[in-house]
Amino acid sequence: MSRSINLAVIPGDGIGQEVVAQGLKVLNAVLPQDVKLETKEYDLGAQRWHRTGETLPDAELEALKGHDAILLGAIGDPSVPSGVLERGLLLKLRFAFDHFINLRPSKLFPNTATPLAGRPDIDFVVVREGTEGPYTGNGGSLRTGTPAEVATEVSVNTAYGVERVVRDAFERANARPRKKLTLVHKNNVLVYAGHMWKNIFDKVAAEYPEVTTDYLHVDAATIFFVTQPERFDVIVTDNLFGDILTDLAAAVTGGIGLAASGNINPTGTFPSMFEPVHGSAPDIAGQGKADPTATVLSVALLLRHLGYEAEAVRIEDAVSADLAERDGATSRTTDQIGDALAVRVAN
Amino acid sequence: MSRSINLAVIPGDGIGQEVVAQGLKVLNAVLPQDVKLETKEYDLGAQRWHRTGETLPDAELEALKGHDAILLGAIGDPSVPSGVLERGLLLKLRFAFDHFINLRPSKLFPNTATPLAGRPDIDFVVVREGTEGPYTGNGGSLRTGTPAEVATEVSVNTAYGVERVVRDAFERANARPRKKLTLVHKNNVLVYAGHMWKNIFDKVAAEYPEVTTDYLHVDAATIFFVTQPERFDVIVTDNLFGDILTDLAAAVTGGIGLAASGNINPTGTFPSMFEPVHGSAPDIAGQGKADPTATVLSVALLLRHLGYEAEAVRIEDAVSADLAERDGATSRTTDQIGDALAVRVAN
Ligand SMILES: CC(C)[C@H](C(=O)O)[C@@H](O)C(=O)O
Ligand SMILES: CC(C)[C@H](C(=O)O)[C@@H](O)C(=O)O
Repeated sequence: MSRSINLAVIPGDGIGQEVVAQGLKVLNAVLPQDVKLETKEYDLGAQRWHRTGETLPDAELEALKGHDAILLGAIGDPSVPSGVLERGLLLKLRFAFDHFINLRPSKLFPNTATPLAGRPDIDFVVVREGTEGPYTGNGGSLRTGTPAEVATEVSVNTAYGVERVVRDAFERANARPRKKLTLVHKNNVLVYAGHMWKNIFDKVAAEYPEVTTDYLHVDAATIFFVTQPERFDVIVTDNLFGDILTDLAAAVTGGIGLAASGNINPTGTFPSMFEPVHGSAPDIAGQGKADPTATVLSVALLLRHLGYEAEAVRIEDAVSADLAERDGATSRTTDQIGDALAVRVAN
Repeated sequence: MSRSINLAVIPGDGIGQEVVAQGLKVLNAVLPQDVKLETKEYDLGAQRWHRTGETLPDAELEALKGHDAILLGAIGDPSVPSGVLERGLLLKLRFAFDHFINLRPSKLFPNTATPLAGRPDIDFVVVREGTEGPYTGNGGSLRTGTPAEVATEVSVNTAYGVERVVRDAFERANARPRKKLTLVHKNNVLVYAGHMWKNIFDKVAAEYPEVTTDYLHVDAATIFFVTQPERFDVIVTDNLFGDILTDLAAAVTGGIGLAASGNINPTGTFPSMFEPVHGSAPDIAGQGKADPTATVLSVALLLRHLGYEAEAVRIEDAVSADLAERDGATSRTTDQIGDALAVRVAN
């Protein structure tokens, strides 16, 4: 039986190009001989926008649907007005492909620097809702630019959308040794959305008697991220709170250079998309300074999603081993880190 | 000339009672002989709600208007549904009295524990907008409790509301030695509100050429709070982002037991309200375990607001000195800490 992966690649902007090259290098190295890997690169991002004014034309959106998965580097450049590429490309993909699970594992690998004293044991996963909340683009502005301007942003939340992400999170918590799930919201202020989230969470919890549950307001959650991160196992939360919490999580687990993410559509109706949590970092682009590890770990999530569990674990183990041997003194280039990881996964 | 302060006191729930008692003790000790302090206690919070179903009746809201300022302990109890007291009492006061400046200084005092390795130098102030954003209570839910439920939360932002808080923040930044102001928002996703904030910020910035300005997305800001908090001087931000960031700020500067806040109406039309950032902590209530320092520091903010600058500084110096002499081994009761601070400010 021959197997194949038909992968769409969106390197994007800044360091996106560099880190994606390493991700593909490691992917090629880890895949068994019999798996045929086809990749197609999509020229999307700041340069394309400057050239043509397009962010994500319909034809390309259609073409992307034909792939098994998408690997994305990073999107964004200071030369493009804030929001144009984010809304027109990145979020457009997440919404069009109904990526309702935004999966962000947070683990403090051995030998990795953390800003936290005492090196707590950190190993949790954030299941961030990906298609609702304040990210829907539902808002507007009236009398724009005048002293009488009113600007609104509407957070839209549906029982349909909340229940599916909450269920997914319970499944993930149930499959982990500690079996603990924390809901994060702000239901003492955002009472409509917050109470719906909490009620659905409590309802689904009844079906998972082995999962220990907990609720935290988002402000309190940030406190525990720095004082007691070991208390978390799986976290489920809203799109915006998940955005904020996962950057903080990345910071306490050794930085945004290591944080991977998957924008997942578990139904398989549309391709899922995997990307590092970091941005395009234009200040260090093109200098071989970017750490490709977050992208390589995103490739592991991609492989796991496509059913290549053993290969995913091989990548994660390679990253662990590589980090364990890093020493602060010698700094390697993007390419060298990619090479080192490719060698490890091939063995 | 005789001076007087006519203070409303809302001890509230849980440890609120205990910490407010110490705040008043220190206030009495620091005030010059010629200042007549009158206090009136308002019985508001969980117990009142259980007894009468009331959170903040009109008559009391009216009576509160007659005071020079309000000292509040903490609001909230697990026996009351989430949101009832927050929306019906605390936020009702902030909105009714147009507390558009929610001022939250963050300072790592010497000898205070921080979860951050390397003890960075932290001394910044968050100017959180207090009357708009996702806190307006503007939202709703449709088909509540059914699988077809839709729940919305509307963030309302006006040029009027944003400009006044941005101006206040520029004034504060301009008065500090480093003269640096950072705007925090999420204008790459919340494009309507975010762009309005950014445009108004840039417009006002032109009037303060000596203030260095900076913009960060809220997710990135949380990273810098733990990796490089010394980069911040004054931060201005939206109501919800300010809520989240100030809890994180409290965590990195020695904990929520030290974080003070002022809900300020700079026009003086209504009394301003001062409260610790922490909650009612029902788990430790009534045991003399609560640290009253955050409340005592809130009293300093209150005094500064009323024009008693020297007394405010005396309290802050007393807290600094007290913290410098604390040793982790001996733990003092709420009352003992209050006594120690009262003695120091009286000297
Ligand atoms: C770039 C931006 C639109 C995006 C988000 O807010 O989701 C990013 O911060 C992320 O976390 O993937
Ligand atoms: C209790 C709650 C309503 C409040 C808020 O969200 O503003 C609190 O967290 C705070 O920061 O003062």
